[in-house]
Amino acid sequence: MNQEISERLLSQIRFIKEIDKLKSVFRQTPLLDGSRMENDAEHSWHLAMIAIVLAEYAPEEARILRILKMLLVHDLVEIDAGDTMIYDDAATAGQQARELEAAERIFAILPQGQEAELRTLWDEFETGETVDARFAKAIDRLQPLLHNHQTEGVIWLKHGISRNQVVDKNIAIAQGAPELWPFAQALINDAVDRRWLTDT
Amino acid sequence: MNQEISERLLSQIRFIKEIDKLKSVFRQTPLLDGSRMENDAEHSWHLAMIAIVLAEYAPEEARILRILKMLLVHDLVEIDAGDTMIYDDAATAGQQARELEAAERIFAILPQGQEAELRTLWDEFETGETVDARFAKAIDRLQPLLHNHQTEGVIWLKHGISRNQVVDKNIAIAQGAPELWPFAQALINDAVDRRWLTDT
Repeated sequence: MNQEISERLLSQIRFIKEIDKLKSVFRQTPLLDGSRMENDAEHSWHLAMIAIVLAEYAPEEARILRILKMLLVHDLVEIDAGDTMIYDDAATAGQQARELEAAERIFAILPQGQEAELRTLWDEFETGETVDARFAKAIDRLQPLLHNHQTEGVIWLKHGISRNQVVDKNIAIAQGAPELWPFAQALINDAVDRRWLTDT
Repeated sequence: MNQEISERLLSQIRFIKEIDKLKSVFRQTPLLDGSRMENDAEHSWHLAMIAIVLAEYAPEEARILRILKMLLVHDLVEIDAGDTMIYDDAATAGQQARELEAAERIFAILPQGQEAELRTLWDEFETGETVDARFAKAIDRLQPLLHNHQTEGVIWLKHGISRNQVVDKNIAIAQGAPELWPFAQALINDAVDRRWLTDT
């Protein structure tokens, strides 16, 4: 569009335009008022806000800037790969390959050094082995748990989800943010008491 | 819900639930595919991503973590105050008072120290006098400019907006991120050439 704009900036602008598509990827989690399903972009914003507010429960060596960046980029691959219901084992089977392919395409829009920085953060989140990635993953589990509890388990009931399934997926909270696990357990217990989850 | 959960954590959870409402505050900016208007939560996510990608154009003393936090919280007051069209001078008149009242209510849901931290960041963004706040404001202007250009000025045309009005509002880009101003100017010039903006 203009010779004075660097190719580097134009690549960055292409990426900024591309990721707008995340606002049209819808998840299986309702907004708290139940009016509609949440999309990946607003979900990512909510996770970043939760990480800021609950940062004091992260392990001491956690670095909040890296956690925020991970949470902001972690769902970008769903622009191509789509959102997969966490309890749908058949769908999650091919998910990893689809997401890897998506990461190859989407991060490559960025200039080289920057592509590597964001891709490395995404890989770290996916692998989930560092303190930062584990805390980020804990937040990524806690938010849907909160939404499902607050919306009276409408999605759990629709899919006939059990306590064990929820504990199994949310044990990531105990692993990444142990101080938040009693709260998560209280939500799960309450959901079983109210019959939003089956007691198995 | 459970005696072992601290009052502090329960306040934080109340805040986390409250801010979900930002996903239902719609702006005057369309998504890039033109399918619908953007909401404040996904807008805030996009701004945070843009700040990460364009951080190299911030002044050297800028601190990216503070900029990200500002961008993530800056629109929270619109939960109560609503979104105001930037070119609607009558509507913007009462906006500041409404937003101050909203800030009082919303940040007060948090435990005390944390209320002060986020409120101070919001005040700093609003006042726009620090390097970090100016860069954050530049990003907050650049994104709608990009969206309006990419969607062929549909919102500008609807309201009969002129080049001078757009330059006047977007001069914040020149002030907070001077390296990005030539790109913003190129978008504005192109929009005038294509008659998406009147040439006055």
